[in-house]
Amino acid sequence: MTEGTQESAEMRAAVIELLGVLAYGEITAFERLAEDAKMAPTVDDKAALAAMAVAEFQHYTMLRDRISALGADPAAAMDPFIVPLDEFHVHTAPADWLEGLVKAYVGDGIAADFYREVAAHLDAVSRDLIVEVQRDTGHSAFVVDAVRAAIEHDPKVAGRLALWGRRLMGEALSQAQRVAAERDALSTMLVGSGTSPGFDLAEIGQMFNRITEAHQKRMALLGLAS
Amino acid sequence: MTEGTQESAEMRAAVIELLGVLAYGEITAFERLAEDAKMAPTVDDKAALAAMAVAEFQHYTMLRDRISALGADPAAAMDPFIVPLDEFHVHTAPADWLEGLVKAYVGDGIAADFYREVAAHLDAVSRDLIVEVQRDTGHSAFVVDAVRAAIEHDPKVAGRLALWGRRLMGEALSQAQRVAAERDALSTMLVGSGTSPGFDLAEIGQMFNRITEAHQKRMALLGLAS
Repeated sequence: MTEGTQESAEMRAAVIELLGVLAYGEITAFERLAEDAKMAPTVDDKAALAAMAVAEFQHYTMLRDRISALGADPAAAMDPFIVPLDEFHVHTAPADWLEGLVKAYVGDGIAADFYREVAAHLDAVSRDLIVEVQRDTGHSAFVVDAVRAAIEHDPKVAGRLALWGRRLMGEALSQAQRVAAERDALSTMLVGSGTSPGFDLAEIGQMFNRITEAHQKRMALLGLAS
Repeated sequence: MTEGTQESAEMRAAVIELLGVLAYGEITAFERLAEDAKMAPTVDDKAALAAMAVAEFQHYTMLRDRISALGADPAAAMDPFIVPLDEFHVHTAPADWLEGLVKAYVGDGIAADFYREVAAHLDAVSRDLIVEVQRDTGHSAFVVDAVRAAIEHDPKVAGRLALWGRRLMGEALSQAQRVAAERDALSTMLVGSGTSPGFDLAEIGQMFNRITEAHQKRMALLGLAS
């Protein structure tokens, strides 16, 4: 095997891992949003969260089909990420409707930022797909309005929800770290290897800074300290 | 008010009630299918049930928009049906993945038959919409295959699932009866009044016969006694 094909085989493995974690992330997001929709105070609110869930499922099918198009098995590609993503959701089960809304908005935002950063390292088709599925579907304006209205109605909830937002960020980082430590192909793509391009360590630091700043902006938009 | 406008006001009220029960039925179906998807043995199975949930949500949005287009408030139109439909789901919570599949298939089928029968009495736009949202989306072939495979693998499950199918039919009829007893406009549309067309009692009997026969055919297709 020449060095070129070795390198492209590694890249392909990394792309499939990335699509796998994204796909499983989307279908669990579907499930959790549908679950959280049960706590909605009105049918309109329920429908708004359900619409977000539906968008996640449509993203799932696009990612799954891309994995198949690359000649890989979607179930196998998703398998390594079932435990860390399920654990993220178990550790961040919202206690009420407002926590569910904040999780939908903040969780979606962190995931979108991370994948957009990583997508820069992919082939054009996979990159465009990831940018497409992570594009804000406009549903989140509903969350911002609802959370701000709740804080206006009862300023005390802001403290609780701010803590909740910090916990979401902490759990997301801890599961991301776990995934990176266990998945060689993915982390090699991130940090690069002798022959393939990747982030260097300074760039990884900058990437996490950008993601943290974007998170703080989202919290501020909700009216919450971060 | 002339007799003609009186009659058309009654008809409009009945149409809005019908669209209201359908809309709330669709959004609860979305919720329950998404909930039941959690019991899926594989990610593929989960995605198949999630796809059925997504189709139900899309139907919900079409029905809600039609209620608005008729100048009525969707939330108010759905309100009377929250209790009976929620009770139907509480009384028929599946104990496992197979019961969830049978409920998805049989419940969907009974609802579709009923609404197709009633749709004949509606204005053309509402009728076409109801036929459209109740059209089999093709997802149910997945249920038939999965249930038949499970019975082949372990013939004992057929007895339990056959009982489950009868219970679903019983609960559906008992909640339908409750709705008909409480909603004057809907039941007037069904049985007709002095001036407006409707089913006569013999026709209602025939309608229930047709729905029961269709249910028996679906159970047979699943490999279950009814």
